[in-house]
Amino acid sequence: MDIKIRKATKGDMGQVLELVTELAIFEKEPDAVAITIEDLEKAGFSENPEFTCFVAEIASEIVGMALIYFRFSTWVGKTVHLEDLVVKDKMRGKGVGEALYTRVMRYAQDQGVKRVNWVVLGWNEGAIRFYERSGANVMKDWWQVEMDEKGIKNYIENT
Amino acid sequence: MDIKIRKATKGDMGQVLELVTELAIFEKEPDAVAITIEDLEKAGFSENPEFTCFVAEIASEIVGMALIYFRFSTWVGKTVHLEDLVVKDKMRGKGVGEALYTRVMRYAQDQGVKRVNWVVLGWNEGAIRFYERSGANVMKDWWQVEMDEKGIKNYIENT
Repeated sequence: MDIKIRKATKGDMGQVLELVTELAIFEKEPDAVAITIEDLEKAGFSENPEFTCFVAEIASEIVGMALIYFRFSTWVGKTVHLEDLVVKDKMRGKGVGEALYTRVMRYAQDQGVKRVNWVVLGWNEGAIRFYERSGANVMKDWWQVEMDEKGIKNYIENT
Repeated sequence: MDIKIRKATKGDMGQVLELVTELAIFEKEPDAVAITIEDLEKAGFSENPEFTCFVAEIASEIVGMALIYFRFSTWVGKTVHLEDLVVKDKMRGKGVGEALYTRVMRYAQDQGVKRVNWVVLGWNEGAIRFYERSGANVMKDWWQVEMDEKGIKNYIENT
């Protein structure tokens, strides 16, 4: 099947949000998605876009997406962060994920960044195998930390 | 001792790079810092700065710094990422780290973001205790993945 990768448009954000939600369910965080289509449209398609999104199409149907943005490393400078890479469940095993992944790596190379970063759930063995086979380095010794809005508020009030 | 937190200026980047290097040594990656003062000056002080940096001063001497930038979460929208928080070794235990951390949380609240994210090395127990006490959530199940410049090149050539 012919897979077409293209930059997402503002009009794709509804389908992109469906894919974001599908990934959140897969990641066992079904209630984590607080964002709206309008938020995505505003963040991605204003004067200073906060992300770049690629979509994968088969027969003009969106079957996957990859969403990236730049980060800044104090060790190597500008990097590309791959926030989400999702393929519709029924479309897995057809090379869609790999096509999106390749598009992201080409984009990173075109932009001249020194690194692409992302995160993976430790139990997602299929993804980890794919990443390692592609040459990526999976690191278990760096842990994610986050403070949510309520935590920020509590911390400030008690400091 | 009086700790003053202020936004870093272009002229501070030399001292900021020293602190970045001090942190890399502490993190057992002494050779990881490939960035130059000029890179930091350009990235942080151009029209669209890639980061915001705060420095901590005691008696007009820079004794620590925190470097942050925005990221984009497909679950909650804009977030603040804390890339580095460093206190000079001889200045630890005086509240400098906490003052910088508080400044970052206040900045995040002022910017209206839903979350502050960062990473910590799993063996850095003192830092982990501090973060958890402050209300942050330390997650061991999300692993970092990265593909460096050489890996990107190899992957593309073999795809």
